[in-house]
Amino acid sequence: MRLLGLGPQAVATDAMRALWTDHATLQTMLDVEAALARAGAEAGVVPPEAVPAIADACRAGLYDMEAIAAGALRAGTPTIPVVAALTRQVRAADPAAAGWVHFGATSQDIADTALVLQLRRAVALVCQDAAPLLHALRALAERHAATPMLGRTLLQPGPPVTFGLKAAGWFAALQRGLDRLRAAADEALVLQFGGAVGTLAGLGADGMAVAEALAQLLDLKLPAAPWHTQRDRLAALASAAVVLGGSLGKIARDTGLMMQAEVMEVAEPGGAGRGGSSTMPHKRNPVASTVTLAVANRLPGLLAGLLAGMVQEHERATGGWQAEAAAQADIFLLLSGAVASQAEAIGGLRVDAAAMGDNIGRLRGLVLAERLMLRLAPLLGRSEAHHLVERLVGGAAAAGTALRDVAAESPEVQAALGPGFGAALDALFDPAGYTGSAGTFIRRQLDGI
Amino acid sequence: MRLLGLGPQAVATDAMRALWTDHATLQTMLDVEAALARAGAEAGVVPPEAVPAIADACRAGLYDMEAIAAGALRAGTPTIPVVAALTRQVRAADPAAAGWVHFGATSQDIADTALVLQLRRAVALVCQDAAPLLHALRALAERHAATPMLGRTLLQPGPPVTFGLKAAGWFAALQRGLDRLRAAADEALVLQFGGAVGTLAGLGADGMAVAEALAQLLDLKLPAAPWHTQRDRLAALASAAVVLGGSLGKIARDTGLMMQAEVMEVAEPGGAGRGGSSTMPHKRNPVASTVTLAVANRLPGLLAGLLAGMVQEHERATGGWQAEAAAQADIFLLLSGAVASQAEAIGGLRVDAAAMGDNIGRLRGLVLAERLMLRLAPLLGRSEAHHLVERLVGGAAAAGTALRDVAAESPEVQAALGPGFGAALDALFDPAGYTGSAGTFIRRQLDGI
Amino acid sequence: MRLLGLGPQAVATDAMRALWTDHATLQTMLDVEAALARAGAEAGVVPPEAVPAIADACRAGLYDMEAIAAGALRAGTPTIPVVAALTRQVRAADPAAAGWVHFGATSQDIADTALVLQLRRAVALVCQDAAPLLHALRALAERHAATPMLGRTLLQPGPPVTFGLKAAGWFAALQRGLDRLRAAADEALVLQFGGAVGTLAGLGADGMAVAEALAQLLDLKLPAAPWHTQRDRLAALASAAVVLGGSLGKIARDTGLMMQAEVMEVAEPGGAGRGGSSTMPHKRNPVASTVTLAVANRLPGLLAGLLAGMVQEHERATGGWQAEAAAQADIFLLLSGAVASQAEAIGGLRVDAAAMGDNIGRLRGLVLAERLMLRLAPLLGRSEAHHLVERLVGGAAAAGTALRDVAAESPEVQAALGPGFGAALDALFDPAGYTGSAGTFIRRQLDGI
Amino acid sequence: MRLLGLGPQAVATDAMRALWTDHATLQTMLDVEAALARAGAEAGVVPPEAVPAIADACRAGLYDMEAIAAGALRAGTPTIPVVAALTRQVRAADPAAAGWVHFGATSQDIADTALVLQLRRAVALVCQDAAPLLHALRALAERHAATPMLGRTLLQPGPPVTFGLKAAGWFAALQRGLDRLRAAADEALVLQFGGAVGTLAGLGADGMAVAEALAQLLDLKLPAAPWHTQRDRLAALASAAVVLGGSLGKIARDTGLMMQAEVMEVAEPGGAGRGGSSTMPHKRNPVASTVTLAVANRLPGLLAGLLAGMVQEHERATGGWQAEAAAQADIFLLLSGAVASQAEAIGGLRVDAAAMGDNIGRLRGLVLAERLMLRLAPLLGRSEAHHLVERLVGGAAAAGTALRDVAAESPEVQAALGPGFGAALDALFDPAGYTGSAGTFIRRQLDGI
Repeated sequence: MRLLGLGPQAVATDAMRALWTDHATLQTMLDVEAALARAGAEAGVVPPEAVPAIADACRAGLYDMEAIAAGALRAGTPTIPVVAALTRQVRAADPAAAGWVHFGATSQDIADTALVLQLRRAVALVCQDAAPLLHALRALAERHAATPMLGRTLLQPGPPVTFGLKAAGWFAALQRGLDRLRAAADEALVLQFGGAVGTLAGLGADGMAVAEALAQLLDLKLPAAPWHTQRDRLAALASAAVVLGGSLGKIARDTGLMMQAEVMEVAEPGGAGRGGSSTMPHKRNPVASTVTLAVANRLPGLLAGLLAGMVQEHERATGGWQAEAAAQADIFLLLSGAVASQAEAIGGLRVDAAAMGDNIGRLRGLVLAERLMLRLAPLLGRSEAHHLVERLVGGAAAAGTALRDVAAESPEVQAALGPGFGAALDALFDPAGYTGSAGTFIRRQLDGI
Repeated sequence: MRLLGLGPQAVATDAMRALWTDHATLQTMLDVEAALARAGAEAGVVPPEAVPAIADACRAGLYDMEAIAAGALRAGTPTIPVVAALTRQVRAADPAAAGWVHFGATSQDIADTALVLQLRRAVALVCQDAAPLLHALRALAERHAATPMLGRTLLQPGPPVTFGLKAAGWFAALQRGLDRLRAAADEALVLQFGGAVGTLAGLGADGMAVAEALAQLLDLKLPAAPWHTQRDRLAALASAAVVLGGSLGKIARDTGLMMQAEVMEVAEPGGAGRGGSSTMPHKRNPVASTVTLAVANRLPGLLAGLLAGMVQEHERATGGWQAEAAAQADIFLLLSGAVASQAEAIGGLRVDAAAMGDNIGRLRGLVLAERLMLRLAPLLGRSEAHHLVERLVGGAAAAGTALRDVAAESPEVQAALGPGFGAALDALFDPAGYTGSAGTFIRRQLDGI
Repeated sequence: MRLLGLGPQAVATDAMRALWTDHATLQTMLDVEAALARAGAEAGVVPPEAVPAIADACRAGLYDMEAIAAGALRAGTPTIPVVAALTRQVRAADPAAAGWVHFGATSQDIADTALVLQLRRAVALVCQDAAPLLHALRALAERHAATPMLGRTLLQPGPPVTFGLKAAGWFAALQRGLDRLRAAADEALVLQFGGAVGTLAGLGADGMAVAEALAQLLDLKLPAAPWHTQRDRLAALASAAVVLGGSLGKIARDTGLMMQAEVMEVAEPGGAGRGGSSTMPHKRNPVASTVTLAVANRLPGLLAGLLAGMVQEHERATGGWQAEAAAQADIFLLLSGAVASQAEAIGGLRVDAAAMGDNIGRLRGLVLAERLMLRLAPLLGRSEAHHLVERLVGGAAAAGTALRDVAAESPEVQAALGPGFGAALDALFDPAGYTGSAGTFIRRQLDGI
Repeated sequence: MRLLGLGPQAVATDAMRALWTDHATLQTMLDVEAALARAGAEAGVVPPEAVPAIADACRAGLYDMEAIAAGALRAGTPTIPVVAALTRQVRAADPAAAGWVHFGATSQDIADTALVLQLRRAVALVCQDAAPLLHALRALAERHAATPMLGRTLLQPGPPVTFGLKAAGWFAALQRGLDRLRAAADEALVLQFGGAVGTLAGLGADGMAVAEALAQLLDLKLPAAPWHTQRDRLAALASAAVVLGGSLGKIARDTGLMMQAEVMEVAEPGGAGRGGSSTMPHKRNPVASTVTLAVANRLPGLLAGLLAGMVQEHERATGGWQAEAAAQADIFLLLSGAVASQAEAIGGLRVDAAAMGDNIGRLRGLVLAERLMLRLAPLLGRSEAHHLVERLVGGAAAAGTALRDVAAESPEVQAALGPGFGAALDALFDPAGYTGSAGTFIRRQLDGI
């Protein structure tokens, strides 16, 4: 479904899409089955001579995917048709080995552990694709640390910020989001192995030995216990992914707004197929922003379903569990698209510092009136200064002239600022001089304080 | 993604899945382009001789799907690469015709109208697949109109209902849901055709003529105006689909609970791959219920995203629109799976009326204590009757015997009910006699009052 | 919680807030109890002499609200402490009447019917408050039917629309939303009356007679059957409300964007406390838009919970039902705030048609290049015209001059348009002349075609 | 809204409800204003003599709450009317001090920091209320470490688990959830202080000094930078809360199911107002489970809104921010109710170990057929053992007798197990002997491995 707008399949990176194909899922499940046989042999519960035939059959290409998919729906889980097909395949090669396929495991052990392995790769892909984005954001923040632009609250102009401050805010949120994602993955991505009801009873006294061997073979941590119906860790991982998506959406919202023709402070990079217009050569559609916003739109609802699904029955749930894996895949497919889109957009972002200055200038100094007032307050008294500036602002607004010039003609201002009042006003109305602690905030955010 | 638990692709019927493939989407978009050329010709704005070349190129098989999918992501919409490829194809056959491809339309006109056409088929499929389910539910309701079973509130036993009443409730909710779905489709599934910004300015004075012709060719209603960023109709359609999914989930919850080994009042039909157990021949996993509950879990979050996406900017949105089509597809893929699962489950439901009776019986008549009280009230006074029954219930509970028998030995009861008290008590403790207006409610629901 | 940002209590109108207070809820529940007693008397199952004492006790002011609220949580439903308190009150006045309190009903009958009655008033309030908004939108659409402004797609400029077309789109979506809300209310707002398990068994053969009398007394329709765990109608009503909220959010998004200092095409009305700025007299915060967007943010998640809660168990649910009423109230509290905010904002919207024109003008005619091309195509051939216009656009962009003027100096254009080319170009570059069927679309939407 | 089912206000603990009243919110905002004045004085930007008048006016009781609430809606934020009222109050006492009210801050600084302070208390309350629940769960897990009960997958019976294992799973998920909540709070609950656009420009070179002093006075960490439109930390905190709610919902689902009359393995404690039934003395409504499930129903949608709202514009958002605080409050109100309900329910849970055994017994040993097969496999060969057990199961099922007894009469079984076959079968069919690593899993989970 890559032509139906910008859904999970459409936006995902190729690598992420490849990770969640049925072929990849099947192969991952078979990897778990192969490791299970080896672990059983290591723990002495499976005859070592059964392992080669099983391992050899654990290649996805051997199986009829359509039949397995149809069987998965009939059984309610993919593991049942996978194990059935695997067992047939092994039996053909080594009848004795067939009895040791899937030994000690339950369907959910295989499906969940495969999901965990896929999620591990998915998290790694996201972090990898985010690295250049982080780099580009850091570069923007440093390069434009002193580039003034309008601060905008409720979409209305306020005192200046710097573009570097905005970029540093994007950077820091992304950095935190990735940290959270990695931490959540570290907690969540653990082995699932509990047998039919989470006791490993079928393995008698050897359950833990098999579990430890299996965890080691798959390079997964062994949790305190199986977690068939305790999905909090995976839910927390998905939450971290969705929060990260929200932070990407924030970048896209800002850049999309800054690309408006009336604002035109930044532009996404162009390039083949990026939808420039022959009749409007200046026009650049915010495609990467659009992709990212489409992702940010979808993610919260996916998470809501996952979280609602945590209310699971007893030792295996009806519905809540089965709805989870595809939703997790969708979350990471979407997230990969947002990361890649923003990496491209931010990596090639055209920044028009002059336009940023012009947009401040068009407001004729009104966004700096507060600064004038703060400067005059110790000289005239706060109340007096307030009333004076209000009057000057009214005059500038009425005349459509710059507040600086109206102030320069005010006898009170002249008297207060003294003979060098002209230069003083020039300095006061330089937006670059009224960005307060912006530089500190940039530095602290880039340094990850 | 059919192996990742029970997501949209996994649960969908084959027909529904086929409807939303990229091939089907592309073909539908091309159908709209072909109709657009014809409509243009009918309205006299496109030379009739350009139509055959365009129509001839409107076959999905001619195009490189991977390239179009990649182009769709780069452009933010599939229409741009589709129109580019179509134009190249037409140009090769008839250079003069190439200039008339997509004439007067904007990308979103094609994508939205194609979505509308696909949704029309999707709604039809759901209604078609729901027909046997409705039929089966009606049959259950009629067959078991007088089959008593425990009423259960907060999962605790109450006075009896009939299984037919429960089934009639399922039926009526499904019926209403389908009615709502059809009504919403009737409102929502209209032509999208507005040109670049929804004015059809590129067609001069001929805009409405082309629009009318196009609507007629596609057998769609012509709305009052284009609706590029007014998505309320599609949102309402999706809402109707999700509400329907909730009603299916209700059926699945009930049957899943009734299939518990401790209750065992119904069982889903078995059959190949339905996951019976060789060591537990009585066991029947509620697979269809599980599928349906997985669907019901996913749907609300999909809708939440669609609804959040209604807040769209100006004449074409960034993100909100683009997130929509895949979500709509997911909703109908999921819904088809729930309908089909329930059609199979209810169509073959094994109902154990004896077990229903036994489950009432195991409670030793306590669920009918209220009836005894109501019977005694006019004879003894309400307050006296209340206290007497409370005492009898206490006795029955303490002794672990049937309330009827305890009552039969009570002198007060004997006196109140007179010589035929034994028969009277037998009648009072017949659960089939205490189902009130259940029959009326069944009839009214089946009749669609 | 009116100081915690803009949640349901904070944004609601006074009338809507009053409707959902505990006092109002309790009174509504008592109204149902009083009507139940009367209905029982009419049907002959309750002694008429018991009615006055019951009716007299059905005044919310008589009860200790804190005790009832605490009891509601302990019991899981408010009806239990309400009926207990009511019974005590009646008993004090008329011991014999006490036995007839709540006769034949179950807790959920009272709570649901009260909810239905409150929702009926809530829907009426929304429709009433929306009337002036509809009126104002219609007026805007008519007044500005010929006011050109930039069409904007993906936040980028396109050919002109008219402001009237935009307003008509807002109007029509709101109109449809209200129609849907009324239709959903008409279906959903029906009596709930089923007794313990939905059979009215406690009323013997008189169940329907009491139900009919009760429905008539409360002026509610009698549904086919009780619907304790079939919540589809209420879910559909909530859906309609949330879809309506999305359409209001669309208006707010558009006006918020148009209020940007760089765009400044409209402004919300000011007024006391609306947060104007003394140092920036031109600044006007889009407070009404912000309220509306805060509402649109909250609604989808509320609905998602309601829909997920439809999966209810047997004859009374655990959790799904109990979560519903407060969510419904929140939905209508929020919706009332969005309607009222938009009614105020649109009712007093300051429209700056000149600014709309200037924003077109600043793009130097580039948004009309398409029109020039369409005009030249029949004269020069489509391909030739296309290339010529592309060249002219490039020239205009490079020189920073108006496309009209560049075109006026082009010999090809002069030749094609003939001696009156200057006037022809003036006409071509008049944005008011390139709004296609906008007028038709306005009319059709206002007429509700 | 405590009578409308089980919404946030209805379910919250008294302490949590008190925390989020308007009075408490106003007082917290005033606490921040007072601290701001003190911090300004410490940093030398506010005259120390202005502090007492300001601090003295920072008492919520001085203000007209209705007027402030109405003003908050008009201004779009509560801070504007709060600061206006506070300034008036200060001016009356000390006109010179009035100019230093709110000095250097923006509205959002106050509202966000107050929210952070309230959330800190809310998290502490949840953790505090969860302590007895954790304790009770640990006690259950230890006490019933060896109490066998049916394992249930897809609501169907499987091999035994122990009730202690189930309780340990509940415990560990809750423990993890609380750890996550605390960690998220530790990251999220930081000072908000940035002035108009997040630069602290109004404080010139003293911004950081004031910020540091303010953070210290409020005992909050100072973040790297203001975060007016970077809401990821608060979103992550809310996510942690909602995940915790999901884990509580899981407990409630399990206990609700175990309380079914047909299962009756546990019961919530009774007590005043808990809705026992006089006519059904054994009946116990799962009220605490219902409350918890109602909470679990609402939480995911609340979070979805918060996450969707992360996509915020520039330096202050329109809608996304303003929707947040009330949603956060609702999340913690709900969560407190779920924690308290479960603390009561689990703290007083009546566990019927005998019923657990009976429910296994009623299945006549079939859930242990797997164990018999595993025992026979090394003696007879796996394939032979499998077929034999299948045959025995068929026999037991047909005859309705215990599998143990059918096995005891089987010559093959007798031969395989030898002369002590009777005792061997007794041991094999003792469910307590087939719980595998349950004990290990309990210990590991209680130890927090």
